[in-house]
Amino acid sequence: MNVHTRLTQGPLTALARTPYIQGSGARAIFDGVVRPTEGGADIQGLHYEAYRPMAEQQLEIIGLELHERHGLIAMDIEHSVGFVPNFECSFRLVIDSKHRREGLLAMDEFIDRLKQDVPIWKSAK
Amino acid sequence: MNVHTRLTQGPLTALARTPYIQGSGARAIFDGVVRPTEGGADIQGLHYEAYRPMAEQQLEIIGLELHERHGLIAMDIEHSVGFVPNFECSFRLVIDSKHRREGLLAMDEFIDRLKQDVPIWKSAK
Repeated sequence: MNVHTRLTQGPLTALARTPYIQGSGARAIFDGVVRPTEGGADIQGLHYEAYRPMAEQQLEIIGLELHERHGLIAMDIEHSVGFVPNFECSFRLVIDSKHRREGLLAMDEFIDRLKQDVPIWKSAK
Repeated sequence: MNVHTRLTQGPLTALARTPYIQGSGARAIFDGVVRPTEGGADIQGLHYEAYRPMAEQQLEIIGLELHERHGLIAMDIEHSVGFVPNFECSFRLVIDSKHRREGLLAMDEFIDRLKQDVPIWKSAK
């Protein structure tokens, strides 16, 4: 199945445009962005710490499960580790699907699962 | 409210990266892509015809309504008119929101409303 996963040091840079995939009628992209406050206090950014082998494996397991269950065409999953300043992207999910509905559903579910099941912890800096 | 709408002749080109907006924790992007078959037959692409003043107005009305109801930060709405070849993008929606949930909900609702309420018709070529 077409699922790619990676952890990247620091903020995620601009999304490179990749060609749409044969059969895809919908591409949904989600960027998670660091906001300048945490629990009411001003911060400089967030530091992400991961238990790396397990985090990568969990991201891939969740991706593969959703890919199969929703009949997706492709998923690309990227998460930052280390320091990400305010207003920068720390998580990006790209989903190609035949139709819109299953892509958006899978996106919402992925983000829930990411928060529950993936050993990546954030702390304000 | 921060809602921008436009109709563009031909396929939509690569998304220019715009800075994340103050307060935004989530950017969701949807690309609608032309698929090479329609009703089981191979096609070259789709031709979109719009009743232009009303189409632009309707896109904006829907955008403003969803922006307000979901408390969004910004929306950018772009739709093709004219011919769009297979594997090219004919519709793009970018939503900035504080959190993920309302952005993805608004995206799903926008696409439903687009199909129901906006006078843009497509025909296979």
